Amino acid sequence: MTRANAVVLVSGGMDSATTAALAMSRGFEVHALTFRYGQRHQAELEAARRIAERLGVAQHVVLNIDLRALGGSALTGDIAVPKDTPLEAIGQHIPVTYVPARNTIFLSFALGFAEVLGSTDIFLGANALDYSGYPDCRPEFIRAFEAMANLATRAATEQGRRITIHTPLIQLSKREIVELGLSLGVDYGLTLTCYDPSPEGVACGRCDACLLRLKGFREAGVEDPGQYQTVSGKP
Amino acid sequence: MTRANAVVLVSGGMDSATTAALAMSRGFEVHALTFRYGQRHQAELEAARRIAERLGVAQHVVLNIDLRALGGSALTGDIAVPKDTPLEAIGQHIPVTYVPARNTIFLSFALGFAEVLGSTDIFLGANALDYSGYPDCRPEFIRAFEAMANLATRAATEQGRRITIHTPLIQLSKREIVELGLSLGVDYGLTLTCYDPSPEGVACGRCDACLLRLKGFREAGVEDPGQYQTVSGKP
Repeated sequence: MTRANAVVLVSGGMDSATTAALAMSRGFEVHALTFRYGQRHQAELEAARRIAERLGVAQHVVLNIDLRALGGSALTGDIAVPKDTPLEAIGQHIPVTYVPARNTIFLSFALGFAEVLGSTDIFLGANALDYSGYPDCRPEFIRAFEAMANLATRAATEQGRRITIHTPLIQLSKREIVELGLSLGVDYGLTLTCYDPSPEGVACGRCDACLLRLKGFREAGVEDPGQYQTVSGKP
Repeated sequence: MTRANAVVLVSGGMDSATTAALAMSRGFEVHALTFRYGQRHQAELEAARRIAERLGVAQHVVLNIDLRALGGSALTGDIAVPKDTPLEAIGQHIPVTYVPARNTIFLSFALGFAEVLGSTDIFLGANALDYSGYPDCRPEFIRAFEAMANLATRAATEQGRRITIHTPLIQLSKREIVELGLSLGVDYGLTLTCYDPSPEGVACGRCDACLLRLKGFREAGVEDPGQYQTVSGKP
């Protein structure tokens, strides 16, 4: 029996690695999609490659898109990445690391890729609980994207192949994500979650993404196998 | 008084040129956005440049995105562009020139660009009357995209700046588009509508896009100033 294809957005971070592992455990043939979008943390591309290889995905496509030409974010421009935000303040307001329309753009490419592959399933590791407050990680955005997607393609409109946007982590805490990933055998030592790593790919330990990840491991009672320059959240 | 910014998707064809002229006539400061997406008809990029220059837009950004890496269309791959389709058959089925998720991808970038510019207005020259039958040109798709867009960005969700996707041509015939453009002073000699032009940018005169354009000029009783290799629709 042929396995169904799924497109999985893989950034190199812990959430997308967990999501990819989950898609594989559900029996999908995984086509991983990663973007070189002018992010300052290009080391995450190397992490995405390692994750895709370890999982044994069917295909890993890295697309070049120049989001820097549009400007407007600390992740692509010259704005500094915030450090040492108190945990309770993360997610209260949309931070400068927000990239305008990023998930909309990523999901749009995934939609095109899914249609080419004859796939109806797209997986995104969005998380709306322990998260940075990005609007395009919320369930209402995902549902609206899915509704739009089902009017956008030949596959959906002429061939009856309805698209599902799977966001299996969207209501999980970072602790639950860590526990889920470990149960699936994810090697978090391969992942890079940081917004501002060193050129060698060592996480800063102080940006919002690092703080949330470290909190997840701490609450799960597990040592984070990632490499950090500093661990401000450590007791 | 400062004029409001608008993002206008400019492909180089007659519809987007008309749309850009209309946005300017409505008083918007136009930021034109064009994609180098691996299209076989790259001469349209030169046409987009000419149109933007003639209109005197505030800014013209050409973004590189590699849709060819995803495959799946006669406009980006090795599939032949259909020629000499009977006019009554055009739009009855989605043809091989359909590019998976193209307008979704283009509008997603426009959404990000609008947010960076502080703009709430995006113009797209989609047409659902004399058209090729692409699902992502239909009014229901545009409305669904707009609904999604208003959940996607910081501008819309935290700052109350609702996005409007303007598609002023969507219910016009090609004849009406020609008449509107001429009334706005559009020089259609600068535009290139063809799916399969010569490397020098001379339209084929036989693809669906050429046939629909020639029909529009014929019905408007105006000579098409564009250059053609053949004009199969001519009496």
